[in-house]
Amino acid sequence: MSATSHLSTVYKPDFGLLTDLYQLTMAAGYYDQKLHQKKAIFHLFYRKAPFGGDFAVSAGLALAIDLVKGLKFSADDVQYLGRLKGANGKPLFKEPFLNYLQRMKFSGNIYAVPEGEIVLPHEPLLRIEGNIIECQLLETALLTVMNFSTLIATKAARIKAAAGPDTVLEFGLRRAQGIDGGLTASRSAYIGGCDATSNVWAGRYYGVPVKGTHAHSWVMAFPSEEKAFEAYAAAMPNNVIFLVDTYDTLDGIAEAIREATKLRARGHEMLGVRLDSGDLAELSIAAREMLDAAGFPDAQVIASDSLDEYAIAELKAKGARIDVWGIGTRLATAHDQPALGGVYKLAAIEEEDGEWSPRIKLSETAIKVSNPGRQGVRRYYDEKDGFPMGSIIYNQFNGEPTGRFYTEEGFSISIPPGLKEDELLRPVFEDGELVYSLPSLQCTRDRALKNWKKWSLITNFANFPHGLDAALQEEKMNLLEDFGFDAL
Amino acid sequence: MSATSHLSTVYKPDFGLLTDLYQLTMAAGYYDQKLHQKKAIFHLFYRKAPFGGDFAVSAGLALAIDLVKGLKFSADDVQYLGRLKGANGKPLFKEPFLNYLQRMKFSGNIYAVPEGEIVLPHEPLLRIEGNIIECQLLETALLTVMNFSTLIATKAARIKAAAGPDTVLEFGLRRAQGIDGGLTASRSAYIGGCDATSNVWAGRYYGVPVKGTHAHSWVMAFPSEEKAFEAYAAAMPNNVIFLVDTYDTLDGIAEAIREATKLRARGHEMLGVRLDSGDLAELSIAAREMLDAAGFPDAQVIASDSLDEYAIAELKAKGARIDVWGIGTRLATAHDQPALGGVYKLAAIEEEDGEWSPRIKLSETAIKVSNPGRQGVRRYYDEKDGFPMGSIIYNQFNGEPTGRFYTEEGFSISIPPGLKEDELLRPVFEDGELVYSLPSLQCTRDRALKNWKKWSLITNFANFPHGLDAALQEEKMNLLEDFGFDAL
Repeated sequence: MSATSHLSTVYKPDFGLLTDLYQLTMAAGYYDQKLHQKKAIFHLFYRKAPFGGDFAVSAGLALAIDLVKGLKFSADDVQYLGRLKGANGKPLFKEPFLNYLQRMKFSGNIYAVPEGEIVLPHEPLLRIEGNIIECQLLETALLTVMNFSTLIATKAARIKAAAGPDTVLEFGLRRAQGIDGGLTASRSAYIGGCDATSNVWAGRYYGVPVKGTHAHSWVMAFPSEEKAFEAYAAAMPNNVIFLVDTYDTLDGIAEAIREATKLRARGHEMLGVRLDSGDLAELSIAAREMLDAAGFPDAQVIASDSLDEYAIAELKAKGARIDVWGIGTRLATAHDQPALGGVYKLAAIEEEDGEWSPRIKLSETAIKVSNPGRQGVRRYYDEKDGFPMGSIIYNQFNGEPTGRFYTEEGFSISIPPGLKEDELLRPVFEDGELVYSLPSLQCTRDRALKNWKKWSLITNFANFPHGLDAALQEEKMNLLEDFGFDAL
Repeated sequence: MSATSHLSTVYKPDFGLLTDLYQLTMAAGYYDQKLHQKKAIFHLFYRKAPFGGDFAVSAGLALAIDLVKGLKFSADDVQYLGRLKGANGKPLFKEPFLNYLQRMKFSGNIYAVPEGEIVLPHEPLLRIEGNIIECQLLETALLTVMNFSTLIATKAARIKAAAGPDTVLEFGLRRAQGIDGGLTASRSAYIGGCDATSNVWAGRYYGVPVKGTHAHSWVMAFPSEEKAFEAYAAAMPNNVIFLVDTYDTLDGIAEAIREATKLRARGHEMLGVRLDSGDLAELSIAAREMLDAAGFPDAQVIASDSLDEYAIAELKAKGARIDVWGIGTRLATAHDQPALGGVYKLAAIEEEDGEWSPRIKLSETAIKVSNPGRQGVRRYYDEKDGFPMGSIIYNQFNGEPTGRFYTEEGFSISIPPGLKEDELLRPVFEDGELVYSLPSLQCTRDRALKNWKKWSLITNFANFPHGLDAALQEEKMNLLEDFGFDAL
């Protein structure tokens, strides 16, 4: 399985129709008005970091690439559209447009933040350049996969950070939002730092490591816990973690130790015991003591039960002796904030004279006013230790960033000289051709873990140099004044 | 497209591997212990109604049927499993088990609550009877589709109820949890009472009506709002709803009216104007007045912007004049409770002597103690108006329900005689064969709307006769005593 055929390994249809109907009615409008080849630039970005944090872990690009490659309309798709009716009962779409759709493919450029990089609010995760009709038709599906993947990768990074050196397993499939909700969650959680998933589809189709042993139902299917453990150890001697809380947890641990002793005599080691209810701090301390005393210092204590980064921190503060954290619903659905509000905004359009004209979306709310131009993100790092020193959004139509930016109080300050510079967005599609090769999922995960650690060391993020380059900020202010808005 | 080929229209693979790894390790265990043909009964149910309500709208059965039919393992699937390693680096699964998987299919019985019915806590949405190995392998995927579908159908029913006679459109795809998160959300939201979706895949593959007009980007792509409206009306005259808040909303409404007047002269009617920001109460009242004054009393006011049932109620209380509600993120992700905690519990197992032995899952928490036996749900309705009068979970191994049940205070009371009775769960699979024919999605939606209205009239749900039949309650207490638990 190629690393770039994720979605199409799982999904049958082309992705042309995976969109909001209004993208298609607008597309029909552009086509009708002979504006469909007008060049435009869109950016996909989020405005506010999720979970009360300062930044997010970029994820979803592999899936976004599949969507772009799959931007096609089959004959059946077009026939379906042909059957849709407008208010007067006549077809919504005209023949020439439908014929056009059957021929179309993405022919533009896409630049993207690699998966596993840190992205700040308003920084484009994707920049899409091309015929406005193609850019528009991609909007909804790109938002779906980028929003959700980035959300879950970020949640996973927070949970992994709370767990410190411990192992984190994701097992949220049963509570996930649909099958692919689970699949994409497992992939994104792994990118964010989880060590493995219970989700076998994610293993099979996305290459995420899989883990699992047995459930309460296994224990309940036998006349006693003893018989259940014995049968499991006999069947799966090289994968023994006993779930010990089906009846009484301390009795269960004692039973697990008895069975582990017999297993050891047969040349196998119990990997650990799993707690799934009760006071996990107290029980894990008891389990650790019992295991150590019985000569099983390497047996791990695995815990699960509505956990997230806050519960982990609390349990650690209480002295819990947990080696492996199993995280379900609260990770796979990002329970405390189940959606990232990413948007996709037009930032420039080619006028009839061939000149690019900037565009902004106005709003009474300052944070909702979009940024104009062809946006790049310049990152600044310490030459020696690679520590992040600044991140500036600039308009590439103005050339290189000035390195100056305005603080919230309106002071102009400059990025100090002598830093290593890096352009965050990489070319992914050029003239419709894929020019990016995806790193392995393992490399992406390593990158995310390293990045999260570094960026988490920034103690006062308000003082970290980030936001708009001064030139872009001034351009934006001028545009707002043209619209009669006061400088925000 | 057949009504029963939903998931397989969209997904390529078989669904055997769509599970948690521990289901497969347990399956291997049952196979190794020659227990795989032991008969078992599992129930899928939820314990606590979502969103602080008293009940939920059942949804997901159509997808569950696809999962059961797709419980297969391809040669590639089995090869993937064969490559998984245990702790000692040796294969996790043995050859005979992998060969067995390639031959297996579901051969048992499934009973289910039809989609669009009201389901109360602890009432089985599904009862799965058959070889324990098959039941176990279905658990995770069945939970995924039933939990999420039921969650969203219920959220949609609440939103539709808040909207009263108004139209409700779902357009959450861009913030959905993955592609299928969006697809299943659109289907479930329609079942729960939404009138249409923006999601074209949901239209194409699930038959949900689709709606859509244009976005801010359309307006921004033109030199002025006037030119943008003019171009849209020219291209799509039979689908004209103008989004009026790209720049100034009141100016936008005035512009829409000017364009609608020209459109009318060409024989077409503007369907309405859409508000997507600002004070929706004030703006909708202004829009209504302006439209009426200009001779467009039939033009609708459509509103969107982080709406849900609470926002709708608040806007209505403020006198908002909104005809169509567009609901995105908060519906498609069930933002205030993004997961239904449905579970799948073993309730009976066939012993070696061929007798059924009841099983319960113990817990310190009373609500988490599962119910034993082969559970049916008997519904009682008023003979004349069909009003619900009671709903009793009983153990079919004890025969018919007694119609007695215990109140929370421990009093035994009886369902009054003379009511119409109905068995909530219907046969869906018998000996592995599908015996259920799915109603159309439209019928399911009608059923859900009717049911929600009736059940919402129950004013004090604590006094509504529901819960365990007295005989089942007594059986459960006896089982708990056997385990040394006090009666809960």
